[in-house]
Amino acid sequence: MSDKQRGLLVVYTGNGKGKTTAALGIVFRALGRGLPVAMVQFIKGKWKTGEGSFAEKLPELTFLVMGRGFTWESDDISRDKAAARAAWEKSAAIIAEGKHSIVILDELTFVINYDFVALEEILAVLRTRPAHVHVVITGRNAPPELVEMADLVTEMKSIKHPFEKGVPAQPGIDF
Amino acid sequence: MSDKQRGLLVVYTGNGKGKTTAALGIVFRALGRGLPVAMVQFIKGKWKTGEGSFAEKLPELTFLVMGRGFTWESDDISRDKAAARAAWEKSAAIIAEGKHSIVILDELTFVINYDFVALEEILAVLRTRPAHVHVVITGRNAPPELVEMADLVTEMKSIKHPFEKGVPAQPGIDF
Repeated sequence: MSDKQRGLLVVYTGNGKGKTTAALGIVFRALGRGLPVAMVQFIKGKWKTGEGSFAEKLPELTFLVMGRGFTWESDDISRDKAAARAAWEKSAAIIAEGKHSIVILDELTFVINYDFVALEEILAVLRTRPAHVHVVITGRNAPPELVEMADLVTEMKSIKHPFEKGVPAQPGIDF
Repeated sequence: MSDKQRGLLVVYTGNGKGKTTAALGIVFRALGRGLPVAMVQFIKGKWKTGEGSFAEKLPELTFLVMGRGFTWESDDISRDKAAARAAWEKSAAIIAEGKHSIVILDELTFVINYDFVALEEILAVLRTRPAHVHVVITGRNAPPELVEMADLVTEMKSIKHPFEKGVPAQPGIDF
């Protein structure tokens, strides 16, 4: 494989809106190109989302919702950690297998920052992945080692946020 | 309609990757919720994209590719201006009609910054739109008046870009 076609490591980080949303846009494009794509959601789990509902209609898409909601609302942190571990092991297997051209790990930085999975273990899987596999990682506070390894990093920076004005999350826009 | 359900004006701007991509993610979510959504692309036109191909398979999605490519590569700027004007008039009609819960104007800032359509004309349509209609605008260098009017603004900031390393745009990721 030439360097021109190699798999990229893409990171969407920052405190602004649009990280998971952009990852869903990559799914949209990949489906248009007939590229096999997998998305693993590390936080979302309990509640119904627009993306989850649409994904159900797309048999060609591997879409795994494996989280247990926000840790700061958790009833049992050890179960959160076990869920994160299971989601990571599934993700690592999908990446290593190389059947999916694009693998999206939504809110993986959260798992790293809570130390549910060791950063070094994640970096090792990324470093040794099949050369054609694009990996997209989303979430706040991407660790410097991940940014260092990445090919493309965008910081989604919040300039203005409607929750500040008391407007709650809007279905279809936010989730 | 309560303020809690009002239509938002969302702006994705900045020099980083992920603006159009995030807008496509909003399409993905909206389709999952059964919300009518329209996307107008103001630059893309000539070339085939992943999003365009997937959109063709979705009869419930209004997806209009009305641009002529990048102006800095243009053979005829007056035709670009006419195309931008036509795309804007179509967009304004869709917004005013109110049938689509979400209307996405992809790369509209480009049209504003080239002065193909007057900013004041665009702001007037946004200001007087039906209260339930969400509008999402993408593109670099969003003008301050647009940021001022918006409810949610995210700056996609480039931290690291693969083109700097000589890696060209990747199908499925970039377009």
